[in-house]
Amino acid sequence: MPFGNKSYKSAETLGYLNSQQALADFAILIRSLKHNLSSEASPVVVFGGSYGGMLAAWFRLKYPHIAIGALASSAPILQFDDITPWSSFYDVVSQDFKEASLNCYEVIKGSWAELEALSAQKEGLTELSRTFRACQDLHSLDSVWDWLWSAFVYTAMVNYPTEANFMMPLPAYPVQAMCKIIDGFPSGASKITRVFAAASLYYNYSRAEKCFKLEHGPDAHGLHGWDWQACTEMVMPMSCSQESMFPPSGFSYKEFAEDCMKTFGAKPRPHWITTEFGGKRIDRALKRSGGNIIFSNGMQDPWSRGGVLKNISSTIIALVTEKGAHHVDFRFATKDDPEWLKELRRKEVEIIQGWIDQYYADLKRLNNE
Amino acid sequence: MPFGNKSYKSAETLGYLNSQQALADFAILIRSLKHNLSSEASPVVVFGGSYGGMLAAWFRLKYPHIAIGALASSAPILQFDDITPWSSFYDVVSQDFKEASLNCYEVIKGSWAELEALSAQKEGLTELSRTFRACQDLHSLDSVWDWLWSAFVYTAMVNYPTEANFMMPLPAYPVQAMCKIIDGFPSGASKITRVFAAASLYYNYSRAEKCFKLEHGPDAHGLHGWDWQACTEMVMPMSCSQESMFPPSGFSYKEFAEDCMKTFGAKPRPHWITTEFGGKRIDRALKRSGGNIIFSNGMQDPWSRGGVLKNISSTIIALVTEKGAHHVDFRFATKDDPEWLKELRRKEVEIIQGWIDQYYADLKRLNNE
Repeated sequence: MPFGNKSYKSAETLGYLNSQQALADFAILIRSLKHNLSSEASPVVVFGGSYGGMLAAWFRLKYPHIAIGALASSAPILQFDDITPWSSFYDVVSQDFKEASLNCYEVIKGSWAELEALSAQKEGLTELSRTFRACQDLHSLDSVWDWLWSAFVYTAMVNYPTEANFMMPLPAYPVQAMCKIIDGFPSGASKITRVFAAASLYYNYSRAEKCFKLEHGPDAHGLHGWDWQACTEMVMPMSCSQESMFPPSGFSYKEFAEDCMKTFGAKPRPHWITTEFGGKRIDRALKRSGGNIIFSNGMQDPWSRGGVLKNISSTIIALVTEKGAHHVDFRFATKDDPEWLKELRRKEVEIIQGWIDQYYADLKRLNNE
Repeated sequence: MPFGNKSYKSAETLGYLNSQQALADFAILIRSLKHNLSSEASPVVVFGGSYGGMLAAWFRLKYPHIAIGALASSAPILQFDDITPWSSFYDVVSQDFKEASLNCYEVIKGSWAELEALSAQKEGLTELSRTFRACQDLHSLDSVWDWLWSAFVYTAMVNYPTEANFMMPLPAYPVQAMCKIIDGFPSGASKITRVFAAASLYYNYSRAEKCFKLEHGPDAHGLHGWDWQACTEMVMPMSCSQESMFPPSGFSYKEFAEDCMKTFGAKPRPHWITTEFGGKRIDRALKRSGGNIIFSNGMQDPWSRGGVLKNISSTIIALVTEKGAHHVDFRFATKDDPEWLKELRRKEVEIIQGWIDQYYADLKRLNNE
């Protein structure tokens, strides 16, 4: 927060919130740490998941003299421009649910029309408020829509093999747990009732909530750092295909840019990330690079399709797990971890150890020369 | 000039004048050119000499997805921090003159004390004004000092094997020509007379000048882009050793920083370039990089000692010519070019052709995979 609590006030100060500046900050931080800890010759490996995974990979590419390698978990560095199909994100969310249960997928897919029909009726919103146990009466369908939408997307992202106790409690494989709820209703139950119950699993697994805050006033939203970044450099176009469980929709760059201008007074730079960091034909660009990057992705994760899923060279390695979700490798290890997850972490440690050994071997040889 | 003629007004607008911004501009320009010329698949090789050579090398390191290689001529990327001895620049200038003639070197080395003694005398500055054919009466010794200093430094930098007709006319091997003048005086001639005549070669080879503008008012100086860059990121400490032909002097970072603060209201960042682009143990850092950089240096050039003078890998190549000066390879080819210069250019073309062949071979293989 370089300008204290004024940092997020306007485009002028928010301008410093960008990936290049973040990387430069890391460079200065690492150099300063090494200096202050008298560890100038120690090799440094950078780690990160999600946006942090992108930063880790990009840091290795841009600062090979500071980091000997990067572990980039669930880093969708190819989710920009037109490199990855725009519908892939929501297609994966849908596929996760479809694989758990075809009926579950169909219930969710049909629920949007049911919601729309009900909300159009007289007293429809009142009934929805009751059904969704809203803390405050609903004023539009949008908030229900967003509330459900987020529940499905985030549950797909965190479709982890073991339960979560930290921050947001959830059972193991929460997509399967949600679908079990949806499928478990008696045959006469409405789609709306079913999706509400499913979403409650996400928002209220601990059963601490008496009601749900579906309506957020504009105050509650505030301006978040990611919104700014998405509106300036991290432009990731997304659409919903006919096959997805969400209502089909396209991506209008014009509308997006207008919204950004209204919210932040800034124009998006949709081609900037691929100009600065590459991405198109990444196999060609990185084949002869310095290497030493692990791209780890779980195919349950909707972000995985924007990641690097194939080895690029002998030292730019893609580790893909079919059952993995969003940076599952960076969760705490537990005794219930499945074998594939333990194996993934073993493999990562082994590769990184190889980089470190190589670093010291190089150092020794160069010092002898 | 992103703010038109206000671009150089203050630190706020000058802030955009930095190497990172320049590289980003190149990235956007090249991408835009390729798009507009329908040449998306064409390989691009970047070229540059001096500061432009640093930019070329750094561009290849930071944007390997945009440039397949770089020819960096006389690029002193190691002239930062404490990588290269601070006295090396003036030591090379001195060595150039010493190699041309020991007497010449000694005359120049002794001239500073003679100048100081004369200027301390009554009417000393008046006599100096006459001797140096100053257009306006001199008010201090400093201007004579700077005038001579620049003549020697720039002549060493452009100690080219063929004459210059462009911009600043000069004979072939101008250091040798200067020393011939210094050595050619009758034995009783003062050092002052000799160095004036030598410097006149540099400032007046075309014999167009009737008098010399030794005194520049503060207006004439103005603020130049390089001064800003040298005061912010391109901090290159320099000193004069006992062996140099200039009066011995150290480098005071404190004084330097104070001057910068006074002139621009900005504090230098002396470690920034090595943080952003590396440089310390460059052999280690770049050994496993993407490669494809030629560092060409001529050992006559005082900047050469801050350059890369040894091969780093099979594709990061140092081409060193004993008789070469500041980016001599980028001068126009002439029929009088010596064999070593022709050979240097042939070698450069051959290496670059190899990168291009490799690029198309990679492209073909990846398209077939």
